[in-house]
Amino acid sequence: MKEQKTEYDVVILAAGDFPTDVTAMRILRNAKHLIACDRAVEDLLEMDIEPEVIVGDGDSVSATTKAKYQHIFHTIEEQEDNDLTKATKYALQHFNLSGTPTFCYLGATGKREDHTLGNIALLIHYYKQLNIVPTMVTNYGWFTVSQGKTTFAAFPKQQVSIFQIGCKRIESEGLKWNIYPFNELWQGTLNEAVGNSFTIDSDSAYLVYQTHKPKE
Amino acid sequence: MKEQKTEYDVVILAAGDFPTDVTAMRILRNAKHLIACDRAVEDLLEMDIEPEVIVGDGDSVSATTKAKYQHIFHTIEEQEDNDLTKATKYALQHFNLSGTPTFCYLGATGKREDHTLGNIALLIHYYKQLNIVPTMVTNYGWFTVSQGKTTFAAFPKQQVSIFQIGCKRIESEGLKWNIYPFNELWQGTLNEAVGNSFTIDSDSAYLVYQTHKPKE
Repeated sequence: MKEQKTEYDVVILAAGDFPTDVTAMRILRNAKHLIACDRAVEDLLEMDIEPEVIVGDGDSVSATTKAKYQHIFHTIEEQEDNDLTKATKYALQHFNLSGTPTFCYLGATGKREDHTLGNIALLIHYYKQLNIVPTMVTNYGWFTVSQGKTTFAAFPKQQVSIFQIGCKRIESEGLKWNIYPFNELWQGTLNEAVGNSFTIDSDSAYLVYQTHKPKE
Repeated sequence: MKEQKTEYDVVILAAGDFPTDVTAMRILRNAKHLIACDRAVEDLLEMDIEPEVIVGDGDSVSATTKAKYQHIFHTIEEQEDNDLTKATKYALQHFNLSGTPTFCYLGATGKREDHTLGNIALLIHYYKQLNIVPTMVTNYGWFTVSQGKTTFAAFPKQQVSIFQIGCKRIESEGLKWNIYPFNELWQGTLNEAVGNSFTIDSDSAYLVYQTHKPKE
């Protein structure tokens, strides 16, 4: 059963909307390794939490912070990858992680919508290409990636959306509306958990979004 | 040349983050036809703007508002479509629109990320299936849909992202990095306008996101 948890091998805080959800705060404090992307470090320091590493060009970080944390600042000059990917690759290269490590992304949505869209799409890329188990927690819900047959912990009236591109077969049990191999991203939105779990089975990777709160 | 404008045949205000950008406010006030989705009407009334129609189930609207605006409330019982699509179809069925009408979507991002993702994906669907010209304006930038050869008004250092699925050929002029037929959504993000316009040519529909402000 895939349940929401608060302990991850690596937690990466991006510079979108700072997480205010209780679960997100617990995830930050429980991180085995914590990386801040660029100016996200400013919010983090206000919470009295220090990251292990700061990844970014430092352009948007105050001179004071930059000077104080120079020793953990890692500038990665690379145009193809965004900060989220740079931080992920840094973790895989420098931390002593074994097996298939769990990564949690916070602050990766909100503000510019192209960043939000790109970051969500990257979760599937990381899952397929980097051999990690990625989760993204936002102030409204969380995204997980899976494939094959997986059962997800839920609660009645939890709002659920499934995003996939390229599944030839995908089906569900325990959701209000049975899912099918959607051709368009919007077709898997606005579903709902009936009880305390639901199961998805597919022939390829898919993203699941579950809200923190039931529908009002 | 495709330029950002403030006059649209139909403006649809969804219940995401209420627009605070100056352009968005002008678009609201200049709307030929204005539809509010469900509880978005509450924010609208606070601005002293009345919609022509309210589409939604009314669950999240206060009893006072509902009673006062009962005459323009349209409940559409339909599970496949979300409120944005219901409002769009309502406009096409009930308003006297000629040719290829222009639609502007406001408040369609922010809050739940699955709604944001679904609403953005719907723009391409509307463009292809409903024969309208959709634009979505947010507090950070705007999305437009096009295909074939189109020149977009821009400014130096405007941040630009291109989203497409299924183009066999797509190329650009006037962007910092030349685009190509991306396989994944994140690959078209983080581009930048070099001058006061850029041109895209493709064999299929694509979404363009342009920020309101240049990169800091």
